[in-house]
Amino acid sequence: MPVLLFIGLEDRGKMERHWQQDLEELKRRLLWMGSLSERAVHQAVHAVLDSNQDLAKAVHAEENAINEMQIEIDERVQKLFALQAPMARDLRFLLAVSRINGDLERIGDQAVSIAHAALGILRHPPVMEYIDLPRMTELAEGMVRDSLDAVVRGDQALADSVLRRDDEVDRLRDQLFREMLTYMMENSAVVFTAFEVILVVKNLERIGDHATNIAEDVIYFVAGRDVRHPDIDRR
Amino acid sequence: MPVLLFIGLEDRGKMERHWQQDLEELKRRLLWMGSLSERAVHQAVHAVLDSNQDLAKAVHAEENAINEMQIEIDERVQKLFALQAPMARDLRFLLAVSRINGDLERIGDQAVSIAHAALGILRHPPVMEYIDLPRMTELAEGMVRDSLDAVVRGDQALADSVLRRDDEVDRLRDQLFREMLTYMMENSAVVFTAFEVILVVKNLERIGDHATNIAEDVIYFVAGRDVRHPDIDRR
Repeated sequence: MPVLLFIGLEDRGKMERHWQQDLEELKRRLLWMGSLSERAVHQAVHAVLDSNQDLAKAVHAEENAINEMQIEIDERVQKLFALQAPMARDLRFLLAVSRINGDLERIGDQAVSIAHAALGILRHPPVMEYIDLPRMTELAEGMVRDSLDAVVRGDQALADSVLRRDDEVDRLRDQLFREMLTYMMENSAVVFTAFEVILVVKNLERIGDHATNIAEDVIYFVAGRDVRHPDIDRR
Repeated sequence: MPVLLFIGLEDRGKMERHWQQDLEELKRRLLWMGSLSERAVHQAVHAVLDSNQDLAKAVHAEENAINEMQIEIDERVQKLFALQAPMARDLRFLLAVSRINGDLERIGDQAVSIAHAALGILRHPPVMEYIDLPRMTELAEGMVRDSLDAVVRGDQALADSVLRRDDEVDRLRDQLFREMLTYMMENSAVVFTAFEVILVVKNLERIGDHATNIAEDVIYFVAGRDVRHPDIDRR
């Protein structure tokens, strides 16, 4: 006994329009979540750079909103998969959104860690200049912003430019680590503050890594190419 | 004009058997990748604990294998989605595998970072006891192992027990941070080694977080419940 499935062409056209609207709405929600994550990072780092406790405290409210968005977006992705069997670029886009969602939530987590470190740093009198911290912050924030713009526009070239910036983040991380170690060896009174700055630097490095993941996912859904681990021989 | 789709019942039975075999094979590949990640972590931390450079160097070979597996598993997931529109638990399982795959790859990255720190630590004469490091290591390794067992068996209770251990990981992290800061303040000669140990502790904490993510994904695909962010009001 055959299974019969009748779908009129007119209905198919309507379904297709709905589907594209659903994908657009998903993209908008992802961007909204991205803007929350960006803001959380900005507030957290500027709590340190501007010695502003209120900014550090504001990050926790952002985190709740980010976590809610993560759950909502994963539910939307699951519903879209259940609604229609997506193919080709739509399939890759949904899988990419699922991964990007995880990266954005972790950027939020990193912001919370930075805010936590900021409160530790601000409990002590300022003892040092954070020469390269503003530069590293700008760089990591720019990577997150551009990786999200690349998602919206499906812009491979912009995604590529994000990937190229990751080495510079690692270079600034190493430089900041050296500076903090020097401070610690010269003066044991700054050990605690320098330790907290080291944690902030670690978090910024991870934020750059997440932006890199997002950029790789853009290239995956736009071009169908997996550019992670370029050193691997793909048979 | 209607679109007709004829599928004989016999063919459907055959497709269903193939599908279940494909899902089992995917699970086996994920577990294989999990065992590589577990081994990488074990080798990396024991490079520190046993002062063994060779173990640290072995981690890089593991990482390559882990990265290859990540790409292979994501390709399998994409193919399975394209082959059939999975529903209910199968759909949740595939989405969970896609996320778990990312967590396992990041556990591999953390192992590489630990191996890197190990080489730094071993370049200096040993200057301190790592009292709580073996305990923290065992705890994090156990979480990874049990979260993977929970994946294989679809074991919610085991997944729950992984979630409950994360607070203990954080407690040990804080204790190790305090110990390292005390060493640094007392003796500037150990600043570098203590700094590297701090990075190892940070990595172990992240490994515990990834095991937590995996356990949450088990509960998601088995029970259809999203247990992330329990503080959020789900409407």
